[in-house]
Amino acid sequence: MAGTPATPLLKDELDIVIPTIRNLDFLEMWRPFFQQYHLIIVQDGDPSKTIRVPDGFDYELYNRNDINRILGPKASCISFKDSACRCFGYMVSKKKYIYTIDDDCFVAKDPSGKDINALEQHIKNLLTPSTPFFFNTLYDPYRDGADFVRGYPFSLREGVPTAVSHGLWLNIPDYDAPTQLVKPRERNTRYVDAVMTIPKGTLFPMCGMNLGFNRELIGPAMYFGLMGDGQPIGRYDDMWAGWCTKLICDHMGLGIKTGLPYIWHSKASNPFVNLKKEYKGIYWQEELIPFFQSVILPKECTTVQKCYIELSKQVRAKLGKIDEYFIKLADAMVTWIEAWDELNPSGASAEVRNGPAK
Amino acid sequence: MAGTPATPLLKDELDIVIPTIRNLDFLEMWRPFFQQYHLIIVQDGDPSKTIRVPDGFDYELYNRNDINRILGPKASCISFKDSACRCFGYMVSKKKYIYTIDDDCFVAKDPSGKDINALEQHIKNLLTPSTPFFFNTLYDPYRDGADFVRGYPFSLREGVPTAVSHGLWLNIPDYDAPTQLVKPRERNTRYVDAVMTIPKGTLFPMCGMNLGFNRELIGPAMYFGLMGDGQPIGRYDDMWAGWCTKLICDHMGLGIKTGLPYIWHSKASNPFVNLKKEYKGIYWQEELIPFFQSVILPKECTTVQKCYIELSKQVRAKLGKIDEYFIKLADAMVTWIEAWDELNPSGASAEVRNGPAK
Repeated sequence: MAGTPATPLLKDELDIVIPTIRNLDFLEMWRPFFQQYHLIIVQDGDPSKTIRVPDGFDYELYNRNDINRILGPKASCISFKDSACRCFGYMVSKKKYIYTIDDDCFVAKDPSGKDINALEQHIKNLLTPSTPFFFNTLYDPYRDGADFVRGYPFSLREGVPTAVSHGLWLNIPDYDAPTQLVKPRERNTRYVDAVMTIPKGTLFPMCGMNLGFNRELIGPAMYFGLMGDGQPIGRYDDMWAGWCTKLICDHMGLGIKTGLPYIWHSKASNPFVNLKKEYKGIYWQEELIPFFQSVILPKECTTVQKCYIELSKQVRAKLGKIDEYFIKLADAMVTWIEAWDELNPSGASAEVRNGPAK
Repeated sequence: MAGTPATPLLKDELDIVIPTIRNLDFLEMWRPFFQQYHLIIVQDGDPSKTIRVPDGFDYELYNRNDINRILGPKASCISFKDSACRCFGYMVSKKKYIYTIDDDCFVAKDPSGKDINALEQHIKNLLTPSTPFFFNTLYDPYRDGADFVRGYPFSLREGVPTAVSHGLWLNIPDYDAPTQLVKPRERNTRYVDAVMTIPKGTLFPMCGMNLGFNRELIGPAMYFGLMGDGQPIGRYDDMWAGWCTKLICDHMGLGIKTGLPYIWHSKASNPFVNLKKEYKGIYWQEELIPFFQSVILPKECTTVQKCYIELSKQVRAKLGKIDEYFIKLADAMVTWIEAWDELNPSGASAEVRNGPAK
């Protein structure tokens, strides 16, 4: 289990997606863990700028011109000047699994001082089942040294396939602007040695900084919305993706885990800039959460795509009343699925129970 | 925070309830943490036996003769020859809070080697709110060094009152007999430094070994059922209480936390004996969980007592079909509430929002 195996897990089945506006020097620190994987770099902002990638990494890089060329008019669904653009990388990948990480995230250390191979832990999380229907008080029952406790129904011990592995952050916690302003010096120093399934019916704030998922199972739901340039909000891209994804996972009988692995989040973003990006989201969210808590997807929604199109209709009908932004977003959700299916033709109509074809 | 304060938290507002059949030498180890609190000892089995309590502890002790004398015919709802008898102690207490612990549980050490004051951690858990409506990925947002993360709705940050604090166990994990048989050597060595709220709508396996609760908020739901002598099952007493309690907490807008504190669970019970006690529970449970997941309590159930009586009716109507045991249990649930109200007269009809009178 310890150390990096000679051929790392899922070497040819996983892409690492990194949105960035700068040289990727942070990859030096990740070299022992990432070098054998393929990277998809989504360059945000000015496409004429050259992004330097350290030698020895295998990567493809897309800037805005590439996105426009590949998607044509459908490129409108991909955010510009916001890390939400990362979801373009999910779309062009041909692999079964995605790991996405921000370029200000470094290798964290576990309490024994050992470097944490975050990717390896995500893969373990994704390759073992989830248990969304009943809470296990000793956390992940599939981990070494743990199991289901007394009183856990035996019929639920097989679990369900895991679609998402949500990792956490030491050092700078992922706080909103108001909390950043109130607690500028707070650092996350608590290493909680646990992975757990988020129960069915419970929403959570999914952060895109350190995130793994099974693209075949849930990829089309991982749309990071319209943020950044020309949009009224930012910093809700991963939240939006998380609420949509959780809803669809619950409907499809898939699991989402949170907890390990930690990365080291190096720098806090500017809380004043963040407040400007977030403030509409902060009050819209008070209506979004009850909306997501009340959405029911009909039985006919047997693929992630069908779920997502249905959800876009409900977004338009119910959230469109809050602000016209949600009408635009509902349109973009449809465009996203059209673009996804165009780039991933054989998987477009696959039923989840059979597993979408590659 | 460290060490034991001169006057411990809630000294006059909390009783420690211990069910036992043996001398309470285990209290020696707990002396620094328990000595200033009042103990309620519920002696199980032969009432003519004398239970030795170490000097210096303030306690009251009830044996079967006492229970019969105090409750008269209603004593039938209190189990005999099973640690389920502990709930008699909840009923005779006049305090706001209860902590209950098994007599094979010792003081555990945290990763720094320091003795864990389990009771102090339970009190902290009970005195801070719970957050059952949305998952916080950094766990308990009220702990030092933690908060609500980005994307957590601000309207939910006040939380709700905490009714139950469920603590865990190092060393011998709380496994069922089949798992004990399959993994006789498994020990829980993982100290997970977290407290979290169990989300609304999610059931969990509540273990009675190391458990704190707010008696005023939820006491009447903490009935440990009919187990042991003359009953077809055992080792489902705390599970039953946990399912009923979780259901009622969800209905009443109260929270349940699990995680810290750990105690050191010293010895595994005999898996062959356990299997005999559990086997009916293991298959009945497959119907009990869907039952508890589907129960809806009507709006008129505005007190824990009313909820519990309503639940007893649904147990009779729906679980009575599985086995006549559940008819007896439904009767005992009613008897339990009658006995509770007799011993706690002024709180009997209090609405929870006002807090029952003492």
